[in-house]
Amino acid sequence: MSKEAKHGVAEAIAADLRDAIERGEYGPGDQLPGENALIKEYGAARLTVRSALGMLQAEGLTTTRRGVGVFVRSFDPIVRNGISRVSARKWKAGRSVWDDETRGRRPTVDHIEIVPEAEAPGDVAAIFDSTEEVATRRRRYLLDDKPVIVATSYLPASLVAGTRILEEDTGPGGIYARLADLGQAPAHFREDILSRMPTKAETEELAIPAGTPVFVLTRTAVTEAGDPVEVNVMVMDAGAYVLRYDFDA
Amino acid sequence: MSKEAKHGVAEAIAADLRDAIERGEYGPGDQLPGENALIKEYGAARLTVRSALGMLQAEGLTTTRRGVGVFVRSFDPIVRNGISRVSARKWKAGRSVWDDETRGRRPTVDHIEIVPEAEAPGDVAAIFDSTEEVATRRRRYLLDDKPVIVATSYLPASLVAGTRILEEDTGPGGIYARLADLGQAPAHFREDILSRMPTKAETEELAIPAGTPVFVLTRTAVTEAGDPVEVNVMVMDAGAYVLRYDFDA
Repeated sequence: MSKEAKHGVAEAIAADLRDAIERGEYGPGDQLPGENALIKEYGAARLTVRSALGMLQAEGLTTTRRGVGVFVRSFDPIVRNGISRVSARKWKAGRSVWDDETRGRRPTVDHIEIVPEAEAPGDVAAIFDSTEEVATRRRRYLLDDKPVIVATSYLPASLVAGTRILEEDTGPGGIYARLADLGQAPAHFREDILSRMPTKAETEELAIPAGTPVFVLTRTAVTEAGDPVEVNVMVMDAGAYVLRYDFDA
Repeated sequence: MSKEAKHGVAEAIAADLRDAIERGEYGPGDQLPGENALIKEYGAARLTVRSALGMLQAEGLTTTRRGVGVFVRSFDPIVRNGISRVSARKWKAGRSVWDDETRGRRPTVDHIEIVPEAEAPGDVAAIFDSTEEVATRRRRYLLDDKPVIVATSYLPASLVAGTRILEEDTGPGGIYARLADLGQAPAHFREDILSRMPTKAETEELAIPAGTPVFVLTRTAVTEAGDPVEVNVMVMDAGAYVLRYDFDA
């Protein structure tokens, strides 16, 4: 058989399995038929069957557990409500941005890195519109033992020097409540969302499965006077999130 | 050399090129050194060099033009302001949601498909909370001759039967202005954003380069009385968009 014909067979097998997944015949977390079963069912070569399974994985429909088999990706996402999670009502009451969105599942920080003074990366410096040094808080969050997000906050170093913002535990209401204590409460937010494939370092740090992109969400907090006081660059496993925005016409 | 050692060399070459791109030595649209130049510079085999270039493409950093070479991806995105683009002020004034966000570049619809009555897909039916038939408007938009988004609007078939919403040109202010004419003006919106790798059909319809995900953005428009009147499912080339949300604390 020609290479093109084999490719056609692989596509046909992939299309059958894709349809079965979309019909719900194989649900989230279900195991697909193994290579041997597919070889028998379609009378196809092993490499052809592998190629078909590879197509489904590249589309993000399935994940492979080595030595076990191929499974329909299960998607029990964090629904991240961009607007209500950072409402002043919330942080003024000392609540966490996570309170509503993980339906009882508690995310944990397993790694935190605080640098009191550093040069801002170019895109962050452009937002602050200054060459001033920044303090950074970089933390990784796990949900159900899986890393889901690495968030790096940048704040003007001179503003936050000696404050609880540079301690591991920033206290009730977090960074925004502490900025309010300093008379620099955030009044407006901008969130800019990109999506792209992860770098090798991101794949490792977030344990991202093959065929899964990342969201890169940059949130800028601005005071009533119009001064940016925090830029938070979040790199998120896109397979773990739905980003939600509710607003009025 | 072992397979592992070759992989190590490919990673080292990829890391060098990645650093050079991040330092700005090669800017957006610039051509990277060709295979022959890299083979000479690193004393590596052709397959090793190709593997290195493949890593950069898989990360979405570069694009390949067949027979020409490898180029740093240029990114001149549409900045889509989710909230202001659908403000009532705008569509009541008869303006298009595109007016502000493409900085003078005019998107064009090159394909539109209107179906007055059809069964709603499962996830859309769940939002309408009904088994009623839906009307669909499906259109593809090009920007600078490149397809960037396929948007499919679903509306209750009985509500929009015989209205301009089912004509190609929906008139000034578009669908939302026509819904307002019917006494069903949208008052609240919800946008839910996913990102994943494109299916084969999406790759073809949006001419998506290798290593680029799609955004799937589902917007639900709800009246003041709480009735959903439109669900718009948008599949977007993630390499063409920044999704922006501006809101208050």
